[in-house]
Amino acid sequence: MTTIDLETLNRSDRAGFTSALGEIFEHSPWVAERAWSQRSFADVAALHRAMSSVVLAASREEQLALLLAHPELAGKLAQAGQLTASSTQEQAGAGLNALSADELARISSLNAQYRAKFGFPFIVAVRNYTKRGIFRELERRLENDAQTEFRTGLEQVCEIGLIRLEALFNA
Amino acid sequence: MTTIDLETLNRSDRAGFTSALGEIFEHSPWVAERAWSQRSFADVAALHRAMSSVVLAASREEQLALLLAHPELAGKLAQAGQLTASSTQEQAGAGLNALSADELARISSLNAQYRAKFGFPFIVAVRNYTKRGIFRELERRLENDAQTEFRTGLEQVCEIGLIRLEALFNA
Repeated sequence: MTTIDLETLNRSDRAGFTSALGEIFEHSPWVAERAWSQRSFADVAALHRAMSSVVLAASREEQLALLLAHPELAGKLAQAGQLTASSTQEQAGAGLNALSADELARISSLNAQYRAKFGFPFIVAVRNYTKRGIFRELERRLENDAQTEFRTGLEQVCEIGLIRLEALFNA
Repeated sequence: MTTIDLETLNRSDRAGFTSALGEIFEHSPWVAERAWSQRSFADVAALHRAMSSVVLAASREEQLALLLAHPELAGKLAQAGQLTASSTQEQAGAGLNALSADELARISSLNAQYRAKFGFPFIVAVRNYTKRGIFRELERRLENDAQTEFRTGLEQVCEIGLIRLEALFNA
């Protein structure tokens, strides 16, 4: 993604807007597409609030699809080099691309337990955590109930969106 | 702190045990002193559970004193070089010893708001978070109610204790 400015974005038509922001929410350009009608945006925070409100107003099925669009941390896609550019950078920043064999076995097991319990992958804004913190969050959140984790997953998706917007706008 | 082994610790008298583990909970050797009677400990996790149970069983006044024994992140003590060795290393690990003037102003303001609202300092296991994550946690937790934050503060104190035990035992 190259950096862009908000003024240009505010003048974009729906297709241009969606194209510019389609990657902010993983594999889910519909978030940008629906946020377009709320323009113009005074700052990146306002744009993020608009996109987050689209997520929160979406149907339960769409929200689940959004969660399911996210890759597992250090999962098969990551190991095969098939993540989006953003996910690749985010996971590498926390050292998840250089786990020891023990760590990889542990995160794979925790990821599998999480998905079996909740039906969607563990999602966390890795830019906010160290490697140790990510493991602790995974262990801690495994204890939550399904409703809490559905909400927490969406909150983390929105936080990841904010981090990506900040990078896009060089903020 | 030098590394020690659990076998030696399990054989220690109360004074030796307290001396070895007195720094695990910031300025609060009474946690180690009371945990001694629960020995011996099969592993570091068992020792940590014992020390955490002392914290949870303490009186409300003792718990508040424990929270108050913690320094502010990037606060006056840190700037004056007067933190404990553990706190100095922990804060430096997250880059809190090298904040920009803007970041320092922001964290000082957030710390002050937090202390004014709750009556004790914001406490977080900085080894689990990046600098960005610490700022986000501070903003997020400011919105909590007093009871939630009292409990969260104690949980973070216990998590810091675990991290210090792991370092002490080279685990």
